[in-house]
Amino acid sequence: MQTILRSKTKEVKIDAHSAFVIIGEKINPTGRKKLAAALQEGNLEYVKEIAANQVAAGADLLDVNVGVPGLDDVAMLPRVVQMLSENFDLPLCLDTPNPQALEAAMRVAPGKVLVNSVNGEEKSLAAVLPIVKAYDAAVIGLTMDDNGIPNDPETRTAIAGKILERAAKLGIPPENVVIDPLVLTVGADSKAAWVTLQTIELVRREFGVNINIGASNVSFGLPERDVVNQAFLALAIQAGATCAITDPMKYGLFIKATDLLLGRDNYAAKYIKYFKAHPKEEPAKPA
Amino acid sequence: MQTILRSKTKEVKIDAHSAFVIIGEKINPTGRKKLAAALQEGNLEYVKEIAANQVAAGADLLDVNVGVPGLDDVAMLPRVVQMLSENFDLPLCLDTPNPQALEAAMRVAPGKVLVNSVNGEEKSLAAVLPIVKAYDAAVIGLTMDDNGIPNDPETRTAIAGKILERAAKLGIPPENVVIDPLVLTVGADSKAAWVTLQTIELVRREFGVNINIGASNVSFGLPERDVVNQAFLALAIQAGATCAITDPMKYGLFIKATDLLLGRDNYAAKYIKYFKAHPKEEPAKPA
Repeated sequence: MQTILRSKTKEVKIDAHSAFVIIGEKINPTGRKKLAAALQEGNLEYVKEIAANQVAAGADLLDVNVGVPGLDDVAMLPRVVQMLSENFDLPLCLDTPNPQALEAAMRVAPGKVLVNSVNGEEKSLAAVLPIVKAYDAAVIGLTMDDNGIPNDPETRTAIAGKILERAAKLGIPPENVVIDPLVLTVGADSKAAWVTLQTIELVRREFGVNINIGASNVSFGLPERDVVNQAFLALAIQAGATCAITDPMKYGLFIKATDLLLGRDNYAAKYIKYFKAHPKEEPAKPA
Repeated sequence: MQTILRSKTKEVKIDAHSAFVIIGEKINPTGRKKLAAALQEGNLEYVKEIAANQVAAGADLLDVNVGVPGLDDVAMLPRVVQMLSENFDLPLCLDTPNPQALEAAMRVAPGKVLVNSVNGEEKSLAAVLPIVKAYDAAVIGLTMDDNGIPNDPETRTAIAGKILERAAKLGIPPENVVIDPLVLTVGADSKAAWVTLQTIELVRREFGVNINIGASNVSFGLPERDVVNQAFLALAIQAGATCAITDPMKYGLFIKATDLLLGRDNYAAKYIKYFKAHPKEEPAKPA
């Protein structure tokens, strides 16, 4: 199954046979004071700089989150989306819990965006899916509902099924729904990653849809988090994940290596191209 | 299925539910001039130093290879084995293509050793399996035969079956055979790792035996080899590999992270213990 996103002129395909898709996670002020301050001042130059770094490091899509407490996201999200689509030609992933901000951003976003996210809660399904349908977007469906995040793969898979069913009722086809099985930290529960990996396999087998993962929660509270995050990326990709919201600066080369090992990179061309295009050292980190 | 190796007093178990077993690869003079020279001079102090580094970095077993052109390995392999078993209490993996050297080393090795290796060639089966049986050892079976290394998972799996059958005929039970599906470099053939991963899954499904992998060939000729080797380790472990001949200094923490993510490390205890015991920087490398 193929999920297609579009910018003004570019198309990004998510499927199990192509290169794994990297959604750059850095345009998100959570825990980033400098970005939060820039957004509050309406200073989009800094946002642009972060975006440029993510694109240079190999992001295929950009996640856009402007969630700063007190900030008018209904005004800010479309402003940032407009700036990004004027400056960068890659599809966007609109990351907001506010349906008004989402709709305002949809109006100005070119192409076909990915909405981040809907979940199995009645309130979320009712608010988000109609907007996804109206703008012919794709959406990330999180496997949680009014009872929280289930502890077992079967119940998470059932929530994925519910989201897909409710989407279908509105005329949203399954290729426009990317399921995110969620991952909790293995620091708190050593079976946490295993539950996610099992959910990925179950959802792939039952519904055949694309799978997104967030690849940094898993290591929360542990030392050497990058090592754990890398291992998790490889395991999740092998289990069937097809895209991740993650940091291409840190994990881009590792993801390309995994694609290569899974036979998705003829002549190692993409791995070597990526290596040549990116210095070993990380670019200066935005604070 | 559980493969058990023993030193004088310690037992190491290889199975799919326990921690992944690391066989330290560094006592091998191939491409290491300083070690080759030390062996030629009969200077075992340097071998001891390498062994100590491997053990400190988390090796569960030590691979022992003394293959230097012109060196009398029938004399040297047992000498090194004796020195190692006097100084380190962990099982050994005897790595030689010479049956005479193997048998001479078997006579002095305490406990239960792993023999590296037999393969599907008639000559190899006839020479190695009787020694494995006579000393109640375990053996690594490489999936190659008189026709070389097959390009497809099915033929490699058939060779694994042949090795297991010939072992059974001599009274060697399947838990004493660890299959190594072999891996060629993805630099030359971008499907190479995929064939190995498929072979691991097939062999596990058909025979349920333990699987060893060598984790550094895969990246030969590519830049940033460690990145590729790490990704391969995670993928192979998930596919069903249960031990690897590899460098614990480089990959120990990554392997512990993979065990943790696969739900084999309650409370992340082993990961954190490993992290605390090993400085982030690599110990000084033996040349």
